[in-house]
Amino acid sequence: MALVHAAAAGRASGGERRAIALANPGLTGTPYATPTLWAAIQYLGPREEAPAHRHTQTAFRFVVDGEGVWTNVEGDAVAMRRGDLLLTPGMHFHEHHNTTGHPMAWIDGLDIPLVRGLDAGFFEFGPDELATRVTPHTSRNERLWAHPGLTPVGAPTAKASPLKAYRWEHTDAALAAQLELGHAVVRFTNPATAGDCLSTIRCEMHRLRAGTSTALTRTAGSSVWQVFEGSGTVTIGEERYEAGRGDLFAVPSWAGFSMTTDGGLDAFRFSDDPVFEALGLSRVSREEVAR
Amino acid sequence: MALVHAAAAGRASGGERRAIALANPGLTGTPYATPTLWAAIQYLGPREEAPAHRHTQTAFRFVVDGEGVWTNVEGDAVAMRRGDLLLTPGMHFHEHHNTTGHPMAWIDGLDIPLVRGLDAGFFEFGPDELATRVTPHTSRNERLWAHPGLTPVGAPTAKASPLKAYRWEHTDAALAAQLELGHAVVRFTNPATAGDCLSTIRCEMHRLRAGTSTALTRTAGSSVWQVFEGSGTVTIGEERYEAGRGDLFAVPSWAGFSMTTDGGLDAFRFSDDPVFEALGLSRVSREEVAR
Amino acid sequence: MALVHAAAAGRASGGERRAIALANPGLTGTPYATPTLWAAIQYLGPREEAPAHRHTQTAFRFVVDGEGVWTNVEGDAVAMRRGDLLLTPGMHFHEHHNTTGHPMAWIDGLDIPLVRGLDAGFFEFGPDELATRVTPHTSRNERLWAHPGLTPVGAPTAKASPLKAYRWEHTDAALAAQLELGHAVVRFTNPATAGDCLSTIRCEMHRLRAGTSTALTRTAGSSVWQVFEGSGTVTIGEERYEAGRGDLFAVPSWAGFSMTTDGGLDAFRFSDDPVFEALGLSRVSREEVAR
Amino acid sequence: MALVHAAAAGRASGGERRAIALANPGLTGTPYATPTLWAAIQYLGPREEAPAHRHTQTAFRFVVDGEGVWTNVEGDAVAMRRGDLLLTPGMHFHEHHNTTGHPMAWIDGLDIPLVRGLDAGFFEFGPDELATRVTPHTSRNERLWAHPGLTPVGAPTAKASPLKAYRWEHTDAALAAQLELGHAVVRFTNPATAGDCLSTIRCEMHRLRAGTSTALTRTAGSSVWQVFEGSGTVTIGEERYEAGRGDLFAVPSWAGFSMTTDGGLDAFRFSDDPVFEALGLSRVSREEVAR
Repeated sequence: MALVHAAAAGRASGGERRAIALANPGLTGTPYATPTLWAAIQYLGPREEAPAHRHTQTAFRFVVDGEGVWTNVEGDAVAMRRGDLLLTPGMHFHEHHNTTGHPMAWIDGLDIPLVRGLDAGFFEFGPDELATRVTPHTSRNERLWAHPGLTPVGAPTAKASPLKAYRWEHTDAALAAQLELGHAVVRFTNPATAGDCLSTIRCEMHRLRAGTSTALTRTAGSSVWQVFEGSGTVTIGEERYEAGRGDLFAVPSWAGFSMTTDGGLDAFRFSDDPVFEALGLSRVSREEVAR
Repeated sequence: MALVHAAAAGRASGGERRAIALANPGLTGTPYATPTLWAAIQYLGPREEAPAHRHTQTAFRFVVDGEGVWTNVEGDAVAMRRGDLLLTPGMHFHEHHNTTGHPMAWIDGLDIPLVRGLDAGFFEFGPDELATRVTPHTSRNERLWAHPGLTPVGAPTAKASPLKAYRWEHTDAALAAQLELGHAVVRFTNPATAGDCLSTIRCEMHRLRAGTSTALTRTAGSSVWQVFEGSGTVTIGEERYEAGRGDLFAVPSWAGFSMTTDGGLDAFRFSDDPVFEALGLSRVSREEVAR
Repeated sequence: MALVHAAAAGRASGGERRAIALANPGLTGTPYATPTLWAAIQYLGPREEAPAHRHTQTAFRFVVDGEGVWTNVEGDAVAMRRGDLLLTPGMHFHEHHNTTGHPMAWIDGLDIPLVRGLDAGFFEFGPDELATRVTPHTSRNERLWAHPGLTPVGAPTAKASPLKAYRWEHTDAALAAQLELGHAVVRFTNPATAGDCLSTIRCEMHRLRAGTSTALTRTAGSSVWQVFEGSGTVTIGEERYEAGRGDLFAVPSWAGFSMTTDGGLDAFRFSDDPVFEALGLSRVSREEVAR
Repeated sequence: MALVHAAAAGRASGGERRAIALANPGLTGTPYATPTLWAAIQYLGPREEAPAHRHTQTAFRFVVDGEGVWTNVEGDAVAMRRGDLLLTPGMHFHEHHNTTGHPMAWIDGLDIPLVRGLDAGFFEFGPDELATRVTPHTSRNERLWAHPGLTPVGAPTAKASPLKAYRWEHTDAALAAQLELGHAVVRFTNPATAGDCLSTIRCEMHRLRAGTSTALTRTAGSSVWQVFEGSGTVTIGEERYEAGRGDLFAVPSWAGFSMTTDGGLDAFRFSDDPVFEALGLSRVSREEVAR
């Protein structure tokens, strides 16, 4: 149970997880969604448990359907429900337990390709026994940090976001309030720094009103999207796709990208923007298009 | 209606306001609460309006009782209700209007002594006519910024906090959630930077459980407190005071300070801590005391 | 020999020093140069020593004439020579010793009025015996930090500038090189942060070519200047003064200020700009004037 | 002559340069020194010129031998001499010209593999004609920025280091002064921020006294070293090498590394440390070894 550098690891990390990686056909021979991002559907059976591990790779889970699984992050039990974003920053021990009689699935997003490209992978198994099997409605980290503009005084600090769960009720309310004022996009942020919620992955939720389109945008860096609700047409480079609830797609670096919707659309986006910003490589080009 | 340096101002700022400053008897001949902070009770009569002005002095309002007044900050109408903290950062135009048939009063906190000591005062009158008389339940700044861990993408940025209203329902919920985990203190922060809500004034709400005391603390820098709910005994240096709902008291720099309560206590605190931190002058000494 | 808050100090700090404070007649009844800055001529007799003390007030020394005194800052002996700027940041023990048979004098600049206005003064005597009487040409801090664009790896870090001496040979070379490119001003900076050399005081050296003038400038915040070499005419508000080598003058907040010189002029400036920047109170107005 | 994303570039960047890349045999099939770093020997013939281009890849040159070439960075002519480090940060136009009758060679260090892994490459040709053929002893950027602890006031600012040349005379003096105080390492830094001289590459010069060894160190992230003067024995993982003047070697992520020297050793090191720090992936393990 010691920390091991990837080069010395005889066994792949995440062995106890049951996940289907989304392999981008444009990235031949790899199970990666983009050159920096990994996306997978993770599945936990009824009453199943996944024991703790931790690694330098940064991870989140985003839930399109279902509930009943708790992710324990450093021993703090975090419920997973439709629309929620849950964080497991690098080197945080995490484990799952399904308290119900039905299976549950969600998207896992990680920076596996980035960390592998940098040769920065370290991995460690935790105890065989779960840290906790409690199932609180509200985790400890949310009690302390999920209040708008309010910071707990005296709480321990670290570089990673102290808030590990962003609930759909708040995301939905923020999008609804912002939509009255125009196009709605919220970014999930670390309330202790106001920066991105993860050091290498940006997470956002976008809401398009019925009958609207986004500007055609090129961004240095790649992203992965999942339609959360509604449907629309997506343009990526020269291609056009119809996308509905649960569909996933990747946008390569500098590919022209836009979305249009007849009936309205909510879409979750994650990207390597924080990496590009941290390294001084950000670049965006935006042009308005007639629908 | 031009910006004027204090040295050239023939007329005191805030002329149209009706405010009673709390003059600390220890600061002879000044209307100041501490060497850096001004505290006053401001009063607006039925249907009364106070026209716009702005100044380099930073200000907030904290409401112990009543409602019915809206503060328009740069044209955004912000409701004032019991327990709410409302910000008017330096150089933001602000005006008030009472839409009811009864008067309303609240505390004004400002850094007037600090700005005067630095000779940094500038003042400007706004238009005679109010920017708006609308009375929305939720201001524009709250629609964009009052969501936990969620940042609006594309919103304009500035150094001052984009969130101008901290509602009692959130503060109360944060204190209640934190109290289960121990002693409860929340700090009002700028959600765009995670720093203090104002550049020169720190604002916090403290909640003591019934039958508890705080550690005896000495802090370089001064503060002003107001009991929001409940009552207790306050020790400041060699003195002891009984304090109940609405009472205000000042804590001088490096005076030993503690509070004790039989029935529970909520207290609002504002201080010059951000000034001391920014200038590298922070210093705290804390000792636990038997009750 | 314990740290004492100013309110409890029965004895003025700096008792062993022999200094003449420059009392601005516009600040009635105080020995202050501006509302935030103290300026004094300090004098050390032949073979004289001043024992160690430290305080929260930030200090520097600037030498117009003479040499032969070493300031020991936290035990590191720093030579003082014409044109040098020497730092003693807040809470650094410092002591002086004159190794020669002749007296030496220099300007002391401190933020005494600022710290007093904030009630942030703490003071502590050091040992009666000097920490060292060595007289090295180059101090330890200069060995580590006085190399352009080069940072020592593994050196201990702190908030205050690790470089405590800025030598005239470097300042003169920087001004000469910059003058070929236009008007010359260098700011003394903390090489570990690239910020101001002191947390509350900005220090700069200005060089005007013969036959030139500066723009008329108003700055929120005050400054003190000393002519180091050459002479010129100084405009401050409605007044005009002739100023030559060694002359000192203060510029109040928002007073219009310009300098003009026939034969060329080097002038040292110190100001409270870092305070205004840290607190969000900076403001400048500049207009070019015909000479 | 427009900016082109790497995916659309039909022609390799750097076509006019004559460079031999050092291909690490452990990175099969690539011309890379490490997973993030490129190292090459670039060669410019007598009187030869290389026209301007720019790219998102960050570059530096380090000179072990020779002189006579000027690199023009954004039109500012920078001399290249033994021991000098010269920067061409991302998206800065750069061109070379050899003013002598003999060839000159130096090391080029770039973050080509990193930028390729991120799909962040953009490239643009400049004018066919050189911006300048002047050969000043001191470049404009050095006139402004190569003075210890002194910042030019009013100089334009950017994210990249304004100082583009670090001269051997300063590096040598800093190492010599530091060596008296212990083991000597200097880091080349951006004088406007005190951070690394390049956003993705750290550059350092190490000096070992005769008869000394370094601690065995493991670092997450990779580096490339060149012996500048003297010789020694290098341990990398399980291997040992003898290395003398001009020799280059790479240290993979987390490989144990130490150096030992009988006669003294100066070595230049560049690494991807800034990337690891920016992304929260830094990790170091150090153990002292008997020689």
